[in-house]
Amino acid sequence: MKHISQQEDRHRNLQCSGSPINVVLALALIASAWSGSICAQEPASRTIPARVLPAPDTVSPVLQKRFQQAPSPNPAIPKTAEEWKALAATPPVVSQMLVGLRNKFGITIVPEIINGVHCYVITPKVINPINKHRLLLGLHLGGFVFGEGENGTGVLESMVTAGLTGYKVIEIDYRMLPEYPFPAAMDDAMAVWKEVIKTNKPGNIGIFGTSAGGSMALSLVQRAKKEGLPLPGAVVSGSPWSDMSKTGDTYYTNDGIDNMAANGAFWDAVVKLYANGRDLKDPLISAVYGDFSGFPPTFLVSGTRDLFLSNTVRVQEKLLQAGVPTELVVEEAQPHTGFLIAAVLDAPEGAHLYSYVERFFDAHLGH
Amino acid sequence: MKHISQQEDRHRNLQCSGSPINVVLALALIASAWSGSICAQEPASRTIPARVLPAPDTVSPVLQKRFQQAPSPNPAIPKTAEEWKALAATPPVVSQMLVGLRNKFGITIVPEIINGVHCYVITPKVINPINKHRLLLGLHLGGFVFGEGENGTGVLESMVTAGLTGYKVIEIDYRMLPEYPFPAAMDDAMAVWKEVIKTNKPGNIGIFGTSAGGSMALSLVQRAKKEGLPLPGAVVSGSPWSDMSKTGDTYYTNDGIDNMAANGAFWDAVVKLYANGRDLKDPLISAVYGDFSGFPPTFLVSGTRDLFLSNTVRVQEKLLQAGVPTELVVEEAQPHTGFLIAAVLDAPEGAHLYSYVERFFDAHLGH
Repeated sequence: MKHISQQEDRHRNLQCSGSPINVVLALALIASAWSGSICAQEPASRTIPARVLPAPDTVSPVLQKRFQQAPSPNPAIPKTAEEWKALAATPPVVSQMLVGLRNKFGITIVPEIINGVHCYVITPKVINPINKHRLLLGLHLGGFVFGEGENGTGVLESMVTAGLTGYKVIEIDYRMLPEYPFPAAMDDAMAVWKEVIKTNKPGNIGIFGTSAGGSMALSLVQRAKKEGLPLPGAVVSGSPWSDMSKTGDTYYTNDGIDNMAANGAFWDAVVKLYANGRDLKDPLISAVYGDFSGFPPTFLVSGTRDLFLSNTVRVQEKLLQAGVPTELVVEEAQPHTGFLIAAVLDAPEGAHLYSYVERFFDAHLGH
Repeated sequence: MKHISQQEDRHRNLQCSGSPINVVLALALIASAWSGSICAQEPASRTIPARVLPAPDTVSPVLQKRFQQAPSPNPAIPKTAEEWKALAATPPVVSQMLVGLRNKFGITIVPEIINGVHCYVITPKVINPINKHRLLLGLHLGGFVFGEGENGTGVLESMVTAGLTGYKVIEIDYRMLPEYPFPAAMDDAMAVWKEVIKTNKPGNIGIFGTSAGGSMALSLVQRAKKEGLPLPGAVVSGSPWSDMSKTGDTYYTNDGIDNMAANGAFWDAVVKLYANGRDLKDPLISAVYGDFSGFPPTFLVSGTRDLFLSNTVRVQEKLLQAGVPTELVVEEAQPHTGFLIAAVLDAPEGAHLYSYVERFFDAHLGH
């Protein structure tokens, strides 16, 4: 990625848009596209001027407020393991939300060690009868730093999924940073996968995850294929962190627009810690570079403001090229993980999205 | 849409992000989302600072160059019918491209009047045998101003579609601005629809269109439903201009990033001229407000830089809510109509997209 000065940038743009004469003639919407191809200067960085972003009036009022807030600044990089832990601690407001969701869906949470890995078995009061012999495996969000534990946002995510889709969920409380870089989290996920397929038909199991977990869901399939293990029946990957090398256009177009995820020194430090010396484009680190042939049907979700929209659609392109049945939903005006926020805040957009997820699992899982 | 001063904007944001204490505690990626809900100020406009947009290194080199060029300025608003015509005239470079595509796909173009409407019957040398009793109906792009005639970008679009999918296409050269505002274009499309279903099974016919034409494709189905006419077997709508009222988040997030479509006085004038006094949110003007129940399977395509990404995903949400089988493809780093540019420039992304379109039509059209 080459960064050049604004002045140089402006100069290159002028060189291009000022000539040849066809470009001037063909000012309008479509004509300019075709004539543009004759302008063959080297691609340069472009400066996008400051702009006013109105609140989106195409989403529910509660989301309008939430998505329009200024982005929270990224935290400072912790210096000790204790500082990492303190940063990752669940804020009280999340614990309150957990209680609310637990009551709403009549959820029981049972901690369980599966093949040596700490998990939570999350069962909603109402399990759809057709899902009696089905199971979802949850790989939680949180950038390999956040979301841990019974009061964490990982369990919150799984409760939303269990409650809104009517499935039993096994949430994998995988090992995280700073103590456990790659491949600890994926080793935990694989250990659980190997165990649950002993007592459940693999085709009856759906895998889901968001952000870091969304990428882990893809990696799980890629690794299971390599190890000759059976594959799950379907995968739901929400806004996956499928490229940790900050490659992808919306890392730049949506930076500062997305108020949930932003580039910066903090996440650079997380990536470095997680990769532990590996190339960031290693397919084991960044799933988008992996092999998608033979994948089970895969559902992807992102939002128009999502920093990870490119991470999502680049995975879709790989899946489509591999001939995998794929569904993509892109949510209007939503930032990173917006569909989960919508569900937690009881906005209709959340219920809608999870109804599509339920429909998708139902169409593709055995029973 | 309320615009407020930058100062007021900054003030509101500070009010929010500075309190309460939970927001400060919960700085990190996910925790901030849940705690954010407690900040309940009125949604305000936000100022997005200027930023440097690197060239996208996730697309083919030819597209990297093309999509990174500075946006062409919108033209001045013509003052006379003659000035409109001059503006809409095909630039020589497009005529050259037409010849190239015609040779490449061995295409014959036959002008034909169908039920009083000027059309082109566009036949590629190679028609897939399974498509022998199938037909595509093309509603071209160009914002109700551009694309007309045998040398226009409308025919170019249809030649790409015919050549890359192996179908016979009837391209509707519908009446346009400035002489013919709404409902002339749609009346033409309906007249052709009524005629072609006399000699073809409606379920064997696919409708496609991009931008203005993408919205017309949706309107055609909505209007056929209302008039009790049979519906086509499948619809492909590329980056539809489904909301002419400039409602939708990416009208703002992608303005200046998309180098093919941009807001401005020119397009405001086009919209006003087209709507001819009607409310811009009238479903007959802006198809996203129409009824999507009972739609045939619909394929949507947009790009991450597309000004009309919201126009596209808002249609998807309506279709999903109506239970219509829907496929959405969002192309990495592509501006408005980027997939067509990719096809014309022979970038692999173009061939890929049209292979998905072919697969989609093949799955849903009768034969």
